[in-house]
Amino acid sequence: MSGLLQNRENLRVPEPTLRRLPWYLSNVKLLKQKGERFVSSTQISKEINIDASQIAKDLSYVNISGRTRVGYEVDTLIAVLEDFLGFTNLHKAFLFGVGSLGGALLHDSGLRHFGLEIVAAFDVNPALVGTTLNGIPIFHTDDFRRKMQEYDVNIGVLTVPIEIAQQITDYMVEGGIKAVWNFTPFRIRVPENIVVQNTSLYAHLAVMFNRLNFNEIK
Amino acid sequence: MSGLLQNRENLRVPEPTLRRLPWYLSNVKLLKQKGERFVSSTQISKEINIDASQIAKDLSYVNISGRTRVGYEVDTLIAVLEDFLGFTNLHKAFLFGVGSLGGALLHDSGLRHFGLEIVAAFDVNPALVGTTLNGIPIFHTDDFRRKMQEYDVNIGVLTVPIEIAQQITDYMVEGGIKAVWNFTPFRIRVPENIVVQNTSLYAHLAVMFNRLNFNEIK
Repeated sequence: MSGLLQNRENLRVPEPTLRRLPWYLSNVKLLKQKGERFVSSTQISKEINIDASQIAKDLSYVNISGRTRVGYEVDTLIAVLEDFLGFTNLHKAFLFGVGSLGGALLHDSGLRHFGLEIVAAFDVNPALVGTTLNGIPIFHTDDFRRKMQEYDVNIGVLTVPIEIAQQITDYMVEGGIKAVWNFTPFRIRVPENIVVQNTSLYAHLAVMFNRLNFNEIK
Repeated sequence: MSGLLQNRENLRVPEPTLRRLPWYLSNVKLLKQKGERFVSSTQISKEINIDASQIAKDLSYVNISGRTRVGYEVDTLIAVLEDFLGFTNLHKAFLFGVGSLGGALLHDSGLRHFGLEIVAAFDVNPALVGTTLNGIPIFHTDDFRRKMQEYDVNIGVLTVPIEIAQQITDYMVEGGIKAVWNFTPFRIRVPENIVVQNTSLYAHLAVMFNRLNFNEIK
């Protein structure tokens, strides 16, 4: 295996690991606030109930090494994790569909702290086009390609009605969007080189309701 | 195995199935708009690229039977899926932490269409307490137990800073909350009988950034 290939393999971090790393990050941030300067995987393990060996394995993907008996330096671990997770690098995004959920996401300035900046939104509603929401301009969907030249964007947030989810996805990809954050409950299709991240709040609600119902009758 | 136990087993639907069912629902809704009256698992399969046998298996958890060569009746399938997923039954919830994300969720009236109604929010910020957001009253966190008697609520939406995520979770559970929808990147601990649904937008962002980065350098 060539060095380049090995690098690529290292970069392709397993999704479960990527989902756990933010837990470690938030935990280590708390330890820092409590005045801790060093942290071991055993300590993190006790706090969040995940095997220390799993934590050590997950952290092996990140470019940091702990010291025997002392562990990881807290400040370094936070910096390295934030950088590794992409939170220190502001990724610009367009949002498509300023409905209820789309509008809510435009209100969430907190996404910036985790590396996502929605720089503009698109809709066809004449009542919205030309206005701003939380300082973010809303353009007509037809202007998307022109705006792609103006802004340095490669992420599209999809919050349109399901009827047009696929159509708008195709439109985004044709215009040069490389990653789609899909909030619709629709399973969109994209070419192989395009990243899709599904976040269906409704699917999560369905799981929660089912579990709640199960607990209530048992 | 007793009948009761069997019922319980049937109710405990696997999470992957619960996550796929909303896809089928949105797909069947589209087919209805196109004028279709019947749909087969093979048809759904073609649309969303999931094995027809998997779809049939998933739908076997739902109380509906298809007719040979005709498939499922579209109207019935929609009604049964919406009911099964808990979207037709309005579940009342309290939201804790009216920060950027919490405020955004209060703006998202669309959650109602999927069975979740946030009826009140709690915060300690004097600038927020006593006001309303999108018509939803914001109370002081200290008033939570009193409000539990007033409202018929068993779900808590957690959008507080990570520093107090565990503390507020404990407070919710002591007050009678049975399910926590956790939007913080903090791994909260709860008693065994309490449902936790984690939705960390930041973890999803981390996965998306990593995949995007991987595609860019390959």
